Order: sequence, then C-alpha cells, then structure tokens
Amino acid sequence: MQIGIIGLGRMGGNISRRLMKAGHQCVVFDVNARARDSLAKEGATAVESLREIVRTLEEKHRVIWLMLPSGQITEQTVDSLGALVGPDDIIIDGGNSFYKDDIRRAKILGEKRIRYLDCGTSGGVWGIERGYCMMIGGPKEAVDYLDPIFSALAPGLGDITRTPGRDQGETRAERGYLHAGPSGAGHFVKMVHNGIEYGLMQAYAEGFDILYGKNSKDLPEGERFALDMADIAEVWRRGSVISSWLLDLSAAALATDPRLDGFSGFVQDSGEGRWTVEAAIEEAVPADVLSTALYARFRSRKNHTFGERMLSAMRFGFGGHVEGGESIDPEPKQPAS
Amino acid sequence: MQIGIIGLGRMGGNISRRLMKAGHQCVVFDVNARARDSLAKEGATAVESLREIVRTLEEKHRVIWLMLPSGQITEQTVDSLGALVGPDDIIIDGGNSFYKDDIRRAKILGEKRIRYLDCGTSGGVWGIERGYCMMIGGPKEAVDYLDPIFSALAPGLGDITRTPGRDQGETRAERGYLHAGPSGAGHFVKMVHNGIEYGLMQAYAEGFDILYGKNSKDLPEGERFALDMADIAEVWRRGSVISSWLLDLSAAALATDPRLDGFSGFVQDSGEGRWTVEAAIEEAVPADVLSTALYARFRSRKNHTFGERMLSAMRFGFGGHVEGGESIDPEPKQPAS
Amino acid sequence: MQIGIIGLGRMGGNISRRLMKAGHQCVVFDVNARARDSLAKEGATAVESLREIVRTLEEKHRVIWLMLPSGQITEQTVDSLGALVGPDDIIIDGGNSFYKDDIRRAKILGEKRIRYLDCGTSGGVWGIERGYCMMIGGPKEAVDYLDPIFSALAPGLGDITRTPGRDQGETRAERGYLHAGPSGAGHFVKMVHNGIEYGLMQAYAEGFDILYGKNSKDLPEGERFALDMADIAEVWRRGSVISSWLLDLSAAALATDPRLDGFSGFVQDSGEGRWTVEAAIEEAVPADVLSTALYARFRSRKNHTFGERMLSAMRFGFGGHVEGGESIDPEPKQPAS
Amino acid sequence: MQIGIIGLGRMGGNISRRLMKAGHQCVVFDVNARARDSLAKEGATAVESLREIVRTLEEKHRVIWLMLPSGQITEQTVDSLGALVGPDDIIIDGGNSFYKDDIRRAKILGEKRIRYLDCGTSGGVWGIERGYCMMIGGPKEAVDYLDPIFSALAPGLGDITRTPGRDQGETRAERGYLHAGPSGAGHFVKMVHNGIEYGLMQAYAEGFDILYGKNSKDLPEGERFALDMADIAEVWRRGSVISSWLLDLSAAALATDPRLDGFSGFVQDSGEGRWTVEAAIEEAVPADVLSTALYARFRSRKNHTFGERMLSAMRFGFGGHVEGGESIDPEPKQPAS
Repeated sequence: MQIGIIGLGRMGGNISRRLMKAGHQCVVFDVNARARDSLAKEGATAVESLREIVRTLEEKHRVIWLMLPSGQITEQTVDSLGALVGPDDIIIDGGNSFYKDDIRRAKILGEKRIRYLDCGTSGGVWGIERGYCMMIGGPKEAVDYLDPIFSALAPGLGDITRTPGRDQGETRAERGYLHAGPSGAGHFVKMVHNGIEYGLMQAYAEGFDILYGKNSKDLPEGERFALDMADIAEVWRRGSVISSWLLDLSAAALATDPRLDGFSGFVQDSGEGRWTVEAAIEEAVPADVLSTALYARFRSRKNHTFGERMLSAMRFGFGGHVEGGESIDPEPKQPAS
Repeated sequence: MQIGIIGLGRMGGNISRRLMKAGHQCVVFDVNARARDSLAKEGATAVESLREIVRTLEEKHRVIWLMLPSGQITEQTVDSLGALVGPDDIIIDGGNSFYKDDIRRAKILGEKRIRYLDCGTSGGVWGIERGYCMMIGGPKEAVDYLDPIFSALAPGLGDITRTPGRDQGETRAERGYLHAGPSGAGHFVKMVHNGIEYGLMQAYAEGFDILYGKNSKDLPEGERFALDMADIAEVWRRGSVISSWLLDLSAAALATDPRLDGFSGFVQDSGEGRWTVEAAIEEAVPADVLSTALYARFRSRKNHTFGERMLSAMRFGFGGHVEGGESIDPEPKQPAS
Repeated sequence: MQIGIIGLGRMGGNISRRLMKAGHQCVVFDVNARARDSLAKEGATAVESLREIVRTLEEKHRVIWLMLPSGQITEQTVDSLGALVGPDDIIIDGGNSFYKDDIRRAKILGEKRIRYLDCGTSGGVWGIERGYCMMIGGPKEAVDYLDPIFSALAPGLGDITRTPGRDQGETRAERGYLHAGPSGAGHFVKMVHNGIEYGLMQAYAEGFDILYGKNSKDLPEGERFALDMADIAEVWRRGSVISSWLLDLSAAALATDPRLDGFSGFVQDSGEGRWTVEAAIEEAVPADVLSTALYARFRSRKNHTFGERMLSAMRFGFGGHVEGGESIDPEPKQPAS
Repeated sequence: MQIGIIGLGRMGGNISRRLMKAGHQCVVFDVNARARDSLAKEGATAVESLREIVRTLEEKHRVIWLMLPSGQITEQTVDSLGALVGPDDIIIDGGNSFYKDDIRRAKILGEKRIRYLDCGTSGGVWGIERGYCMMIGGPKEAVDYLDPIFSALAPGLGDITRTPGRDQGETRAERGYLHAGPSGAGHFVKMVHNGIEYGLMQAYAEGFDILYGKNSKDLPEGERFALDMADIAEVWRRGSVISSWLLDLSAAALATDPRLDGFSGFVQDSGEGRWTVEAAIEEAVPADVLSTALYARFRSRKNHTFGERMLSAMRFGFGGHVEGGESIDPEPKQPAS
C-alpha cells in the first residue's frame, strides 16, 4: 500500500522503514529536512508540506499516519489535514493523544466522512526490530482496510509461546495488534498500558532500592550484604515469576553500569500516567499503585516540597525538633549508672 | 507524693516542674549537671546517681519515672534500676519504648515483684502548660496508686467541651489519662497515636503543597492564584471540619514565616511511625495512609534514590529518553503547514 | 441587609436562620414547600420562584445566595438567575462547585456586569451554632460589600486562642472568613480543605483499625489487648498532638456505639476529594495520602474488584494457589520426626 | 549426586523429578505416604523418617534439601536434622524462610561445622519444565560443591536473548542461579523478589480494573466501551513495554474465563511481602507500591474494616450523612425555575 507518514522522529522514521521493508510505499514529511532526506535515501518519497503529501498520495483512499508529539502539534496537524483530504480518506493518529480528543476529532472529521483512527503504538526504539504493539480505535472497515499496514508493523506470532486456549486460528491480538473498539478505544487501552508500565517500573525500582539499601554502610556490619544488582536482575530473567521485558532492560543497564551512576534519577512522566489516574477516579476504581508510581516521578523532580517544610514546621511547633534530627535542647543521652 | 525522675531533658524537666507545682516532691537525676542544678534551684532534690535516687526516696513504695530516649539508654537504666529497687517499688517508663520491650521488661521485673508501668506521654514542649496526655499500661493497682501523679500531670477537664454521652461523672480519660490495659498497652496506644500523627501531618502537608503549587509561576497566568498560606491556615481554625491542634501550630508557623523559608524539609521520623506500620502488617490491617506518611519522611531525607535511577535507566532502555525531559533524538516539533 | 437564599436544605436553612438572628432579612426559596413554610414561620419572606425572589429583593444591589447541590442544579440556577438579575447584583454560590466552573460563570456573568462570588462553606450541621468557615473568591468590592453577611455567618474570634504573631488587629481570617482571591479561589481553597479532610479522616480510621485489630480473637492470647476505643478517643482529646474536631466527633460516636455497629462502612465521596487529586496531578504535586484516602472510599463501596480476581487468577496461574489460602495440592504439613 | 529431599509437595516433588531426570539420585521423605510412594515409583528411594534419610545418604558429604512450608515446620525439621547429620554435611532450606532465621540457623549449625544454605526458589508449578530460578545464601564452597544440583534445577541459558554486555562466558546468573552472599542473602533476595511480584501483580490488576470499569453500565452510554480483556492481555504480550510472564499468565486466565468468574478475589499473602515492607522500613527506603500492593490483599480479605465504619461515623457526625450516599435530610433537588 501507499501511505503518508508525518513526523519522522525515532518512532515515525522507524515505522516508515519497517513499512518499506514490508513492501509498502511511504510518502514522508517532517519539518526537519535532514529527517526527510535520510528517509528519501532509504527509498521513501519525501515531500515538503502537508499539502504536498496529500497531493502525492495516489490511492483511492488516501492513508496518512501521524507520528507527532501529542498535544498541540498533533491537534493542529489533524485540523490542517482535515481541510486537505476528502471523504473516505483515513487519518491515523499513532501518537499518544488523550482518548477524549480522539472522540472529538473523529466526530468532527466524520461529518466530512473522513475516517479517523486512534492507534496507541508501543515498542519504543526496539519496534523497528521487534515490531510494534498496536491498540486501535475507530471504524471497523477502516481498520480492516489497513490490515496490511498494521500487519507489517506488528511483531506477528514470532516465537512467543501461544496462550493456552488460543490455539485455533491466529487472531490479530496474537499478531500484536487489536481493534479495541470505536474512536478513543485505542488510545484508552494504550493509556492504561502506560499507567501499568509506571506501576511495574516503580515495583522494580522499589525492590532494587531495598536490595541496594541492604548494602549500605549505614547498616551495622553484621546486617549488611554485598548484593550484586546486575547479577540479581540477570538471575530473575530465568525461570522467575517476575521476568519481563522491563527486567531485561534493567539487567542490560545494570550489566554495564551496576550503580547506575550514569543516571541522576530525575524522572519525567508523560500524559498517559496522569490520564490513567484520572480515568480511575472517573470510574471510582482504587488505583493506589498506579497513582503512587506517578507521584514518585513527581517527587523525583523536586528538591524539597513545601509540604515537607510544613512537616518540619509542625514538628518544630510541637516538639521543638529542628531539622536534621537534632533537637534544639536534646534529651540528655543518659547512661545507666 | 515523692517521686524520682530520671532524665531532665525538655520532657523530664517540665514533668518535674508540673509535679512540683502540684505539690509533689521530686528527686531528680540526669547525667547533665546543669540540668540537675537547674531543677534543684526550682525546688527539686537533685542527686548524682541512680543508686542515690533509690536511696533518697523515702516512701514505702518507691516510684521512679524514666524520661529518656527510647532504645538502649532506657533499656540499660531499667536494668540498672531493677537491681537497685525492691518489691512493690514502681518503675514508670514515660518515654517512647516499643511495647514489646515493655512486655518483656514487666515480666522480668515482675519476677522480683517490681512493678513496671509503660506510659506513653504526649504533649511535647506544651505539656508543662497544657498538661500531658498519658496512655498507661501495667498492673491496675499500681496505676491507681499513682493516680495523684497522673492526675497532676494530665490536663484535666479544662474548658474542652465534654463529649455527648459522657456527661455523668468524670472519667480519667476525660481528664487526659488512661489505663489502657496490661503491660505494653500504654505504649501500644501511644505508638498508634504517633502513627496517626504522621498521617494527619502528611494530609495537611499535601493539601498546603497543592495550595502552594497553585501560586506557581510554572502555571499559565490565567490558571494561577496568589493564595495566602497563613490566612488559609488561620481561617480553617474557625468553624471548619479540619480544625485541629496541628493546624493551630501550622497557622502559627505560617504567620511568621509564610513561605517557611526557615525550614528545609528534611524530616525525621522516630520509631513509633515504623512500629505502627509493622503492627498493621502483623494484624493484616491495610494502613496505606500511615505507611505513605512514613515513606514521605524517608524520601524527604534523600537526594535521589537508587530506585529513581532505575526508572531513568529503564526509560532510557525502552524509549531512549534521557533525563530532564530531553530526548536524545527528540521527535521533531512539527508545526502544521 | 436583605438577602435572597435559594436552597433550604440543612445548610441553606441554617444559614438563613443564622443570618436572621443577626438581624438580616432573608427572602427564601426552595422547591420544597415545607422547607419554605418552615423558614417563613421563623421570620423569612418565603417566595415561590426564582423570578419572585429577584422581584422581592429591594436593595440597590440584589444579593442572592445559592446553597444547592453542586453540578447541574447549581449550574441551571445560576443560568436562570443570570437572566433575571441586573448589573451590580451579586450571586453567591455557597455550595461545592468545581472552581473552574466558577471561573467560567464569573466570566459570562461579568459580561453583564453581574457579580459572582464562589464561597466554600464549611461547618456542616454544626454551623448554625459554631458559625461557618468561609473561603471566598471573586471581586474584592463585592466581598467587602457583603462583609456584614459573611461576618454574621462566620464564627468570629470566639474563645479560640489567637495565633502567636497575629495579635495586632483582628483579620477576617481570624473571624473565620477569607477573601482567597479572584473567581474560583474560594472553591479551590474549599476543595483542598475537603481533600485534607479525607486524609485526616483516613489517618484516624487506620489508626483505630490497628487498635481494634489488637483486640482481635485472631491473635494469640498473649498478644491481644482489650483496648477501649471510646476511652482512647476521649483521652486523645486532652493535651495530645492529634486532638482535633474530627477526633471530637469520633469520640462522640464511640461513646455511644463503641463498636460502631450502627455503621456499615460504605463510604461516599463527593467531588472535592477527586478534584483535589486532579489538581495535584495538574501541578505535579505528589499527593499520596489524599489519593489513597479517596481510594479507600472507592474500595469501601465494592465487594470485590475485577483487579482482585486478576490477582487470584495470576496466583493460581503460577502457583496453583486457590483462594481462601487453601492450595489445591498443599505442601504436606511436615512434622519433624 | 545423591541428595535427600524432605517435603514432596508440588515444589519438592517436582524438584526431585527434575533432579532425577538430570541423573541425580534422590532419597525422599514426606509424612504423606502417598507422596513418597509416588516418587518411589518414579525412581526415588523413599524413606520413612528423617533419621532414615540421613542413614541412607552415602556420599561423603550428605546433602539434604528441605522444601517445607516456612515457619515452624521448617524450623523443627532443621533442628532435628542438626542433631542427626555431622560436620561438612549440607542442609539446604529451599523454602521461603525469613532471612534472619537463616542467619541464626547457620550460626548454630556452623558451631557443629554443619553447612547451611538458604535457597530462594522461584518457579512455582512451572519449574519442572522451565527450571527454577534460585537465589542462594551461605558459604561459597558449599554452593560450589552443589553446583551440579543447582545447575540441573536451573533453567539454563535456554533461548532467552542474552543481556548485552554479558556476552563473554556464561555466568551462573545467566543460567538461573546465583550465590547472592553469606547466610540469609539468598532468602533476602527471594523476599524482595516476591515483594516486587506483589507490586507487579497489583499494577496489572489496577490497570485491568480501569479497563473493566470502562465497560461498566454505570457510565453514560456515550462514555462506555466494550473492551475485550482477553484480547488486550494477548496483544500486550507482543512487542509492548509491559510484556512479562505474569501477563502471559493473565492472558491465559482471561482466554478461558474473560470475566474471571471463577475467582472471587479473596487474595492471600505470604510472609515475603510483609518482610519486604519491614526491610524497607529498617532501611528507611520508601516502598509505597510494594506496601500498597500488600494492603490491597489485606483489604481483599475483609468485608468492611472498623476504619471504614469510623469514616462513616465521622461523616455522620459533621454532616449528618448516612451511609449509602443518602442524607437523612438531603439538600432539596432544586430545579431552576
């Protein structure tokens, strides 16, 4: 198939490459000329504007995949494209948009019979090799029409053991993509996916923190171990209940930098973790772990909070405690005599 | 009554003063000579050793109150006193011992018919004026015997509105002290008291953090307020559901230092918060708020955790994200065109 | 002053009574005729429609206080009033609206020069006696104009000890009301107030849960106490760090129903707790305690969650564990021999 | 090698089988005669007492593996064995003992030159096929001596991609077992492993709860999806960041029981999750996710907590709210008119 790709960053560029490798034709655009040129050398048709991308696509139903930062840039580009394409053309937002924005966009574009798909795309820098896991929302016939595209991007069955009870006839889910439901459903599932990701990451982080703390010079000598973080991550990859791809990545990081000195621990979050908590609240679902994983990232980006100063101030107020654990007028250290 | 007081820090010194004011005689000891001298000038009999305190007490049942840092110092002093006093004498641990230590000590001392009381004592630097709230564990007849002491230290009915349903005959609880049960029960109740204290403090801290954050220059101008922390704390003291003594203290701190610049936010914890969580775990009681309040203090004392570096390492591993929110090879910022 | 009051439920009715007692004239309306009649007998002018309330108010600047459930009813009533009143008239939303709704309403009404105040009102069923704590947002001159109203509703200085550093000249905050800032600021502060309230309540709840659990027959006999919940709540009211109005209420409940058999523990939440968490997320402020307190309420209203069934399913999947702690094929209980 | 195995439950039985398959000789014992007989038929030498197991082992250094429920049974069996075996014999506790118990036992047995290893063993019912992941504490020479045993039980390199930076010479960790350090280190690492397991499971559980809630009839029709839990779990197994073995198990459970009607959601916990939290507290490491995952299990086993009744009681106290969201005297539902 012929497909337009807008946004040639790490994700969009690699998606183009994986599609071309599978025999699809890519008409690509990015404001960054270098990114365009690079793809052009690899066989893509590079164009210089949204208008040109639309003009260049020749198939009956134009198909344009957006791989842009969520928020304003995606919003504006969808708007602009909406004015350029026509009935039955398909716009796919492969980024991380908020699912309620998808619902709104699909409705507006639908009034012009433009078809809009929201496609949550997981895989990161590894997707070009491993394939992308895709969660898609929007009209079924558009998803079906694009099956060759999704199928090329997805990992496929690969050598992953099939799930018992799934052994008759492959499903799309088994090949790594899913039509999750109507507009918004794709990004909703991707949003929760990322919310879970935060929780999983924080669980490993806390566990390794406890292991690491057990080596601490702060502990009395007899209570201290000299645990090897890299070996522990490695051994858990084999036959343990907590093996996972995130653990594989942790093991790789620890193998070359066992104290992780290359990282300071200032951790960003993106919208999905926040939206997941908000969705939980809307549904009145308790989501303690996912929330606390989000807050750990907030806290990681602060030196001290005003709240912590409040705690200090209250402690000073009722007990005369000054910070650093020293009392102004400490209880005398009283030996028995 | 005549009573020995060991440990003349802020708590022990003021307890002696409050008892003397009520007409009791205090025989006091502290390793710090200045603390002893100061109390002697105020009317106490100051002595120079545990042995001497025991020798000086003249009543039929010697009564000795320990107000020492919990842990080894208290343990050693109880041990030493155990060898010096005799049957029916009473040792009161007024500090913050772990309640299981009380149970053990009471058993050992009980073999010599020495009576041991564990008395959780709340009130901080304000106790000398407001009186001390006391939660007592140990044999009933010893608690009854010491009623004049507890009664003098407690706040009494004061002008606090009586609890509906409590209007016939004052109870000890209404006067601010309680025989909570057998050995250990006093410090158990005090432990949970402090656990709750952590939770309450953290609730205020988070709330004020959200208020404070609403003034932040990081927010777009239209979404920002200029809330006055001191006035907010003050107004909540009057007629609101969340009025409390901790709020009074917060209001006082904010009245003179509205940004709390005098505090860094490095927050200590003492054993009780930790033991409360452990007690919850022993009983299989979910204690999310009390635990998270404890952890907020742990976190306040760290720059970054190893766990946070793990998060950064994983994020780098799957998405090429580098810290500070910058990607190595960021998605191009794509304007619509 | 003359003031219109719309909504004569527990809050609105008592507010009218407190205002009349202070000499103000109330023109009241409620869809419930009985509520209107009741207030009429107590001296209010009862009317039968919004239109009539507007017509009846005679002062130069009409003042109308809404005390309605937040959400659609308040929204519709503000809309309707907006069409009935004129320039310089003042509408006060005394309920629990979302602060962003206030900002929007104030803007729309402002275009017609109608003045809109958002007034968070705390005090519950006790406000009629204790006075109401009020957090007000909106134009300063409207707040000043209404000072006689706010002043009458507020608790005043009362016999609450003044905050050190606040001893020169009474402030409004000290009398229990506060102009927090422009439109929305009042309900924002009230929202955080309620968020804190959830956290405080949960801290007490968990603490008492741990106390209660220590009496449990599930514990071995030697490790069990027979703690008296009512006495413990009572004693903490006197001189302890955790004394508060919420504790006063807890003590009152426990005094007459020590096992709280009259309550099932199905706990509602209102919008403020949720909005507080969302505000924290918007500001990237970690709010673990406030969130977890909210989630505890969500969980209290469920039998089991789907998530818990997932946990059971996973446990069964990796370990063959069946629920209830029984294994299908349990490890043999192996005595040493 | 010849090895004694005590405890022939699911874990111990399968461990014997895997060892025999690798050519080792197993002398097995269990109080359950049926379990013994079953293993005897498969080639093991079944004996009828601890004494007999010791007598039957013929190698220079007797090696005995305990696979018993942690706690008293393991403790007693170690004690009894300690009296039966001699210098240089090796006892391995392959169960889930508390690591401080290991340290104590190793010390006591070490006085008789008996060597004690603590071996955390992960793998559950799948270990017989996949191999067991083992984390071992104790003297190095004993671990080295037993290398053939550990090597046979471990998964080996298998077809798991090797960790980048680990490509020269296989390490034990890569084959699935690890000498973590001195006595206690094995079970310490296993303990944290299980703590992480709780956190991971809870993250998935909450995520699926949010997905499931999005299908709820409680939501307005336009906001509801009809997400397929089984397909979502399946698609995430392919190329997504959150793929893991726990997800594989979830997918398998959902494939055959998409609403998990076969499970009630009453979730047990074992000691390791609790000890992990206690270790975090000892080290002052914030472990919010691991704690909250534990508490979610506690809560799953209760109907309502006393704490929840406290919340209801307080709400009733300040606002007259009665449970179930109904107010005694609700605010009138006020239509605009």
